[in-house]
Amino acid sequence: MLKHKDLLGIESLAAEEILQILDTADSLQEVSSRPIKKVPTLRGKTVINLFFEASTRTRTSFEIAGKRLSADVVNISSSTSSVSKGETLIDTARTLDAMAADCVVVRHASSGAPHILAKLTKAGIINAGDGAHEHPTQALLDAFTIRQRKKRLDGLKIAIVGDIAHSRVARSNLHLLSRFGNHVWLCSAPTLMPVETERIVSAKQSRLHITHSMNEAVADADVIMMLRVQFERMNESFFPSVREYFRYYGLTRDRVSRAKPDVIIMHPGPMNRGVEIATDVADGPYSVILDQVSAGVAVRMAVLYLLLGG
Amino acid sequence: MLKHKDLLGIESLAAEEILQILDTADSLQEVSSRPIKKVPTLRGKTVINLFFEASTRTRTSFEIAGKRLSADVVNISSSTSSVSKGETLIDTARTLDAMAADCVVVRHASSGAPHILAKLTKAGIINAGDGAHEHPTQALLDAFTIRQRKKRLDGLKIAIVGDIAHSRVARSNLHLLSRFGNHVWLCSAPTLMPVETERIVSAKQSRLHITHSMNEAVADADVIMMLRVQFERMNESFFPSVREYFRYYGLTRDRVSRAKPDVIIMHPGPMNRGVEIATDVADGPYSVILDQVSAGVAVRMAVLYLLLGG
Amino acid sequence: MLKHKDLLGIESLAAEEILQILDTADSLQEVSSRPIKKVPTLRGKTVINLFFEASTRTRTSFEIAGKRLSADVVNISSSTSSVSKGETLIDTARTLDAMAADCVVVRHASSGAPHILAKLTKAGIINAGDGAHEHPTQALLDAFTIRQRKKRLDGLKIAIVGDIAHSRVARSNLHLLSRFGNHVWLCSAPTLMPVETERIVSAKQSRLHITHSMNEAVADADVIMMLRVQFERMNESFFPSVREYFRYYGLTRDRVSRAKPDVIIMHPGPMNRGVEIATDVADGPYSVILDQVSAGVAVRMAVLYLLLGG
Repeated sequence: MLKHKDLLGIESLAAEEILQILDTADSLQEVSSRPIKKVPTLRGKTVINLFFEASTRTRTSFEIAGKRLSADVVNISSSTSSVSKGETLIDTARTLDAMAADCVVVRHASSGAPHILAKLTKAGIINAGDGAHEHPTQALLDAFTIRQRKKRLDGLKIAIVGDIAHSRVARSNLHLLSRFGNHVWLCSAPTLMPVETERIVSAKQSRLHITHSMNEAVADADVIMMLRVQFERMNESFFPSVREYFRYYGLTRDRVSRAKPDVIIMHPGPMNRGVEIATDVADGPYSVILDQVSAGVAVRMAVLYLLLGG
Repeated sequence: MLKHKDLLGIESLAAEEILQILDTADSLQEVSSRPIKKVPTLRGKTVINLFFEASTRTRTSFEIAGKRLSADVVNISSSTSSVSKGETLIDTARTLDAMAADCVVVRHASSGAPHILAKLTKAGIINAGDGAHEHPTQALLDAFTIRQRKKRLDGLKIAIVGDIAHSRVARSNLHLLSRFGNHVWLCSAPTLMPVETERIVSAKQSRLHITHSMNEAVADADVIMMLRVQFERMNESFFPSVREYFRYYGLTRDRVSRAKPDVIIMHPGPMNRGVEIATDVADGPYSVILDQVSAGVAVRMAVLYLLLGG
Repeated sequence: MLKHKDLLGIESLAAEEILQILDTADSLQEVSSRPIKKVPTLRGKTVINLFFEASTRTRTSFEIAGKRLSADVVNISSSTSSVSKGETLIDTARTLDAMAADCVVVRHASSGAPHILAKLTKAGIINAGDGAHEHPTQALLDAFTIRQRKKRLDGLKIAIVGDIAHSRVARSNLHLLSRFGNHVWLCSAPTLMPVETERIVSAKQSRLHITHSMNEAVADADVIMMLRVQFERMNESFFPSVREYFRYYGLTRDRVSRAKPDVIIMHPGPMNRGVEIATDVADGPYSVILDQVSAGVAVRMAVLYLLLGG
C-alpha cells in the first residue's frame, strides 16, 4: 500500500513507494498478455477519468488499466463537463466524491490542481498531468521501461532532451531518476530551459547537469529521453523554425551513434516525427517507445491497485 | 414496478409510485457505501445516455447508477451524434430501439421530446431534463434528501428561490412537493417568474405561494431550495447585474437565519457561487447539497431498477 | 474463423467467409432478444472504437455488439484524440497495439487507411468506413437482412439508388451482391455516378447495370436500397436543389409500386426524409430499415466473434 490515498507527484513519493509500484507493475504486466486480459481485483470500484485537456494516450491507458482490473470507468472531458456552466473545479471534484467515486484521474492545465482536489476528497486523486508541473505515471512508466531494459535503475547516464521548460514529463523524470543516483543531463535550447529548473538542479547533487549542446548530452548515454515539442503550449516563438530545431535538438542516427552501444531511445508520445526525432530513429533498433506504451498500462494498473485494492 | 415503461415527469406519477421509488432508493443507497459497489441486478441490460445538452453531473450520475447495477451503459452526446447528419430525433430513438436498448435516458432542449420518443419505442424512456419542462429524477432526489433529513415529506414550508422561469427543476419539484401537502413558496424576480407558473399555482391549492420577496419566502422555512442562474439559457437581460441579483435573491447567512433553526439548504448544481448562493452558505452546516448528489445515484439506480429489473 | 486477422472490405472476402459471418450472425442475433443480453464469449478482450469521423449509429452498434459479448470497449473520437497534437494515424494505431488492444474498429475519411493500419498491428482492424471506399459491415448487415427476408441471396434484382459517387455503402454492397449472382442496378444522377464505378461494372459480369432512370432501376426490383444524400461530403453543387433531387431520385409510393409486390426497401441511415426517401415509404409496410439496424448489431457481434473469439 502507498502511504497516501493519492498519487500527486514523484517529488512526494518515497523511493520504496516507487519501487513498490514498479514491482507491482512487473507482476501485473502479464495480465495484458493473457488471452483473457482481465482480473477481478477492482470489481465494484468506480474510477473517473476527469480530463480538462485532451489526451488520447493517457486517458485510454488509464481506461484500459481500470477495465483490465474490472473497475467501472467513467470518462469526463472538459468539452462535456459542467465547467462550461461555470462550476468550480473543487465543486466538480466534491460532486464526484459524493457519487462515491473511488478514484479520480485528473489532467488539468493548472499546476497544483490535483493537490487541491486531494485535500477535499475521500476519493484517491491521481495526477495525470498538471500544467508544466508533474506527470507521475509517465515518469513511473519510464522508470519501469529503463529497469526492464537495463536491469537496474541507478548509475546510468540519462539525457533528457527538448522542451524542458514546458515539460511535466521532464520534471517528474528528474525527480525520479535523481532519487536513484543516476546522472541526468537536461538539454535544451536556452529559451526552453527555465530558470526554475536550474534552481532545482543546483539544489540537488552533482549528478545533475544542464547543457545546451546535444552532443554533450548524448555522449556515452545509457538512455536518451526525447521530449515532445509542445506546439500547443507555445504562444511565443521559442525557436526560429522546425528545421532549425531539428538541426540542433533533433535526434538523428548520427547523434545516437555517440551514445553507448546499448543505448535506449525513449519518447513519451505523441511524437512529432522530423521535429524532435528522426523517423528512422523512432522506428529503429534502439527505440523502446512502444515498450513505454505497454509499460504505461502496467504501471497504471499498479497505481490503481495500490490505491484502491486490497 | 411502475405503471409505465417510462419516467417522463413527476406530473404523471402517482404518489404511491413516488414513494416506491424513494423506498427503493433507500435500500439501494447502501450499495454505494460497500467496498464492492456493484450488484448484478441489471446484468445484460443496455442503457443509453442520449444527451443533446451537455451535463456532466446528470450523465455521470446515470452512468454510475447503471454500472453499479451491472448494466451496459452507452453514452451518446449531440456533438458526436447523427444529429449533425440531419437525422430526426425520432429516427435516432427508433434506431436505438432496434438495437434492443432497454432504456434511453434523454436530455433535450425541447420540452416534450422524451414524451414523443416514449410513444415510439419499446425501450423505457427516462426524461433527464427536457427544456424548461421537467427533470423528474432531480425532484425525486430532492424529495429523497428532504425525507432523509426531515423524516417526513409533508407539512413542510419549502422555499424555491431563483430562476423559476427557466427551471425544469422548479417545475418538477413543484409537482412533487405539492402532491404531498407541503407549503411551497416560489420566489423570484418578476422577470424570472413566468405567467404559466402563476397559472399552475392558482390551479393548485392554497398551499402554493408566489412572492418576489426572498425574506418572505425563507421566513420559518424548513427547506430552502436555490436554483441555478442559467446564464446559458438567458438570451435577454433578465436582471441588471450579478451583484444586483445576489443582493435581492442570493442566499446569505443573514437570510438563512430567518428560516427554521434546522433548515436545510439545497441546490441542484452546478452552483454559481456568489451569484445565487454565498460560498459560506453553500459549504455551511445547513447545506445538504452533497447529500443531494449522493441521493441522485441512489434514486437513478431505483428508477433503472423499477423500469428494467425484475 | 476468417482467413485474415482483419475485416478491411468485402472485395477481399471469399464467398464462404461472407456466408460464415451471416450464419454466425444468425445464431448471435438471438442474444439481443434475451432478457439478459450478454454472453461471456469475449470477456477480457479489448475493443477500441477509433472514429475519425462522427457516427452515432455505427459506433453505438459496435459498442453494443462488443459489450453483449462481454468485451471491454474503449471509444476514441477524433475530437479528443492525439491527432490534434500532430500524431500520425500510424503512431496512433501502433500505440493502441502496444496497449494490447485485440481489435481496433476504424472509421477514417481516407480510403485505404484501415489497410495501412492492418499491416502494422497485431490487433485485428475492422474497417467501419474509409472515405468513399468500403464499409464492409454495412454490406454484411444488408445481406443479412435480404437473406432473412428473401430466404436467399442470389438471383434477385436489387436497385441501389442515390449518391453512388460518394458511397462506400454502394461500393461494398456492389462487391457483395454481385458475388452471389444478383442483378444489381446502380442508379444516380450523372454527376453522382463516378467513372470508376462504371469501370468496376464493366469489369464484372453482365449482371451489373447502370442507369440514370429511377423507374428503370426499380422496375420489378426485389430490393430497393436507397443511399443517403451526403450533404457533408459535397463541397460542390451536384444537383440543383433538394426538391429537384427528390423529383428524380426520391423514393415515393408511386415508384415503389413499380417494383415486385414483395419488394423490400432499405436505407443505411441516417435518413434525409423528403430528400432521398418519402416519409410514408420509410415508415411503410415494405420498409426493412429498422431490421437493418437490428441486423447491424448481430453482424458486428459475428465479426468480433470470428476475429477475436475461440
